[in-house]
Amino acid sequence: MEFSVKQISELIGGQLEGDGSRLVDNLGKIEEGKEKTISFLSNPKYEHFIYSSHAAAIIVKEDFQPKKKILPALIKVKDPYSAFTRLLEEYHTIVSYAKSGIEEPCFLGEGSQVGEGVYRGAFSYIGKNVKIGKNVKIYPQVHIGDNVEIGDESIIFQGAKVYADCKIGKRCNLQAGAVIGSDGFGFAPQADGSYKTIPQLGNVILEDNVSIGANTTIDCATLGSTIIRKGAKIDNLVQIAHNVEVGENTVIASQTGISGSTKIGKNCVIAGQVGIVGHIEVADHTTVSAKSGISKTVRKPHTILSGYVGFEHKKFLRANTIFKNLPELSLKVQNLEEKILNLPTDKKN
Amino acid sequence: MEFSVKQISELIGGQLEGDGSRLVDNLGKIEEGKEKTISFLSNPKYEHFIYSSHAAAIIVKEDFQPKKKILPALIKVKDPYSAFTRLLEEYHTIVSYAKSGIEEPCFLGEGSQVGEGVYRGAFSYIGKNVKIGKNVKIYPQVHIGDNVEIGDESIIFQGAKVYADCKIGKRCNLQAGAVIGSDGFGFAPQADGSYKTIPQLGNVILEDNVSIGANTTIDCATLGSTIIRKGAKIDNLVQIAHNVEVGENTVIASQTGISGSTKIGKNCVIAGQVGIVGHIEVADHTTVSAKSGISKTVRKPHTILSGYVGFEHKKFLRANTIFKNLPELSLKVQNLEEKILNLPTDKKN
Amino acid sequence: MEFSVKQISELIGGQLEGDGSRLVDNLGKIEEGKEKTISFLSNPKYEHFIYSSHAAAIIVKEDFQPKKKILPALIKVKDPYSAFTRLLEEYHTIVSYAKSGIEEPCFLGEGSQVGEGVYRGAFSYIGKNVKIGKNVKIYPQVHIGDNVEIGDESIIFQGAKVYADCKIGKRCNLQAGAVIGSDGFGFAPQADGSYKTIPQLGNVILEDNVSIGANTTIDCATLGSTIIRKGAKIDNLVQIAHNVEVGENTVIASQTGISGSTKIGKNCVIAGQVGIVGHIEVADHTTVSAKSGISKTVRKPHTILSGYVGFEHKKFLRANTIFKNLPELSLKVQNLEEKILNLPTDKKN
Repeated sequence: MEFSVKQISELIGGQLEGDGSRLVDNLGKIEEGKEKTISFLSNPKYEHFIYSSHAAAIIVKEDFQPKKKILPALIKVKDPYSAFTRLLEEYHTIVSYAKSGIEEPCFLGEGSQVGEGVYRGAFSYIGKNVKIGKNVKIYPQVHIGDNVEIGDESIIFQGAKVYADCKIGKRCNLQAGAVIGSDGFGFAPQADGSYKTIPQLGNVILEDNVSIGANTTIDCATLGSTIIRKGAKIDNLVQIAHNVEVGENTVIASQTGISGSTKIGKNCVIAGQVGIVGHIEVADHTTVSAKSGISKTVRKPHTILSGYVGFEHKKFLRANTIFKNLPELSLKVQNLEEKILNLPTDKKN
Repeated sequence: MEFSVKQISELIGGQLEGDGSRLVDNLGKIEEGKEKTISFLSNPKYEHFIYSSHAAAIIVKEDFQPKKKILPALIKVKDPYSAFTRLLEEYHTIVSYAKSGIEEPCFLGEGSQVGEGVYRGAFSYIGKNVKIGKNVKIYPQVHIGDNVEIGDESIIFQGAKVYADCKIGKRCNLQAGAVIGSDGFGFAPQADGSYKTIPQLGNVILEDNVSIGANTTIDCATLGSTIIRKGAKIDNLVQIAHNVEVGENTVIASQTGISGSTKIGKNCVIAGQVGIVGHIEVADHTTVSAKSGISKTVRKPHTILSGYVGFEHKKFLRANTIFKNLPELSLKVQNLEEKILNLPTDKKN
Repeated sequence: MEFSVKQISELIGGQLEGDGSRLVDNLGKIEEGKEKTISFLSNPKYEHFIYSSHAAAIIVKEDFQPKKKILPALIKVKDPYSAFTRLLEEYHTIVSYAKSGIEEPCFLGEGSQVGEGVYRGAFSYIGKNVKIGKNVKIYPQVHIGDNVEIGDESIIFQGAKVYADCKIGKRCNLQAGAVIGSDGFGFAPQADGSYKTIPQLGNVILEDNVSIGANTTIDCATLGSTIIRKGAKIDNLVQIAHNVEVGENTVIASQTGISGSTKIGKNCVIAGQVGIVGHIEVADHTTVSAKSGISKTVRKPHTILSGYVGFEHKKFLRANTIFKNLPELSLKVQNLEEKILNLPTDKKN
């Protein structure tokens, strides 16, 4: 999509200096200075980039005066960073919702309803009795199972898969390859050492404003629902097992795994590659450091946990410092033993 | 799918009290009490839920007498939990095998054979010379490469991908996005620091009754086969490298990785986020705790291993307890050193 | 694909003994001896397999004389292992580039250009203004977003997904389910505890000869590019976050995660399940052991790091040895304390 520099200047209420007819098709960093991009200059230490830039325009402070001749047009505003951020958001919204209409072939099962402004990409599959709200974007090769409901303005990227009976709220975002509602991992051991599959009949509910990363997997509940509360943000390659509940506005970074029936509180921050065992509760506002293993319920809100077998973060840091120096500690103990051994016999125990 | 309460009552051999014409379309928890569901009451402490439930029916013990007026029909049986479990399984089987026929468009390559009762979803791709048994369910957007064989009654969910030449047994279950037979990670270092790809020409064999989780990846062998023995159950986002063998009835939880040419025994239980190095053997009935790293062959069956560099579980627990208190231990040593230092000169070494 | 034994013998410049008209459709291990395969015999301890083999042919040393009657034809060469390796590579190239033409239905957006010899599998999707070089293989169900560029001879396996605006070099290889260019995980905390999405407008650049494993995810940059330099090899289920740079010929094993804006040097070897924090640099030729956590910039090339909180490998090994014996160390300290305590009162501090 292309915009003129003049259009952008008007959008952010700036004062234009230079050629407003130039075309912009992306936003860029000032140090890159690529053609047909727009950047911003806020920190004076980046000013020198402006003089060699091939960008179409640069957003600058209202009092900025170039010291040499420059190529880009200038858009003068009070706060260049805020103006640029606003532009980023506008651009992102335009790009995200640019797709519309129906690309053929795509599949729509019996009894399914689709709202206004919905995009259905080629090779996308929508099962039976599905309800899809307004302006939802179903990218190519997406799979939506029978009886699924998807709220207004959600975006489901290419190849994401939603199993039958799941519910997805408004303004949710599923990145490519995400799987929602796969069978929970439940097997009952039999006398002969084999396993019998425990039927998984529940579903997954994503409330409003939930983001799910690429190739992340969220299992359905055995009965009832695995629930991701509103505003939760989940990164790529995360595993959420059956019957888990993730609280409102909780953030979970890449490659973390949460085992069955665990309940994570609100506003938690869980870093990458964390493992959390099943059937525990984690209090609101808990922070878990990367790679930690959480094996017990966390009762106190605002706890910070770290460690392979996670415990209080500050204590972990102290323990870890000594771990690195264990050879020295061990040597000290050996030296002490020798000293004690060498005390005159009558003084020893 | 809908059933009448009467039909269900007959299926489980119960005695019906109340309206048998009501329709049931799912199984639920007694505490949810949703319309058109059926639940069970086994533990008396949940009895109060029955009086506010909107469920179509509840399975109860044969001697159960409600203390107040209730909405749901009652189905009286000897053992409500067993009856409910049986219902779960019946329902699961019906749902799993409900799909049949061919949805268009789908792709079937030359020389491929498909058995009776097979479902081929829209946008599914079956390459050349593929053999597919009876009642196999190929969900939409599944990819089956050339020369693949799939045994009777296996279910391949949406978007799972099976590379050419792989073999899948009977009653296997591949969840969405699983990848079977990707190239093994083999690269030969060259003199200039670059890498040359080592061709990967083998395949993957899944024996009967194997389950593979969502977005799990199983690499083909360099030559020969990567083998998952019968009854093995593998969770989501697991990585199995080239030429690995996983023994009969072994269970592997989410996000675990097994490196090339390692052989895992029978009836092992490997928890989540475990890493196992290449070219080792793990004895039958080995248990590995979550997040452990296994770097050496395990010879003795029934071993339990834990730890970042895994060793005997009980020893790990003791070591870990002291790890947490390393600052105190270090302080003790420091105090001892000072005491020794302060011993009268002639007594010191 | 089938070749005659004679054709193969000529290809590797061998001397044929036996039936050259037999057909070969795969390469195999000598101990398997399957029909229609070809193997090699290099190590004399495997010689006995040759006498029961059903293979079509076996590559042997030029001076090899069978001691009994054998079924397979013999192809005699100076170095059987090298000849077999060459055959492996030839076969792999033939198989990899065997697919060509267009399978219907597939999707090609407006303004997109496709070079000679390109394969476009059924249900593959190519967006608008895409440029695809010569002999590129786009397997079924692949998704290529708008404005993407793909260099000559790259292979994109089934169901891999490339977001809009990404660039893929020559001779790259993307395994099934890989995701290139998903949104970076960027969210700005708001006063009410919720998060606002930070728009992700950059792209991913894969330079020439890059390999990406199955279900691996590489996020686009917030602005600018996430870059994988030429010759880098990335295994399955790896996570590369926004704005990361991976250096030339660096190898990253399965399930490793690299956080945002980190820069990994050239010729590094990063094992499986490693986690690397954001905003750091890792020097050229760094080696990181499996499961390590790297939390600080690595300045010195050729460093080897290990550990949950990674540090110098040899120091880690020593510390880990003592970790396992912490209970004994703790007991020694306790014994020392008791001894000191029992020293005669006037000698104590």
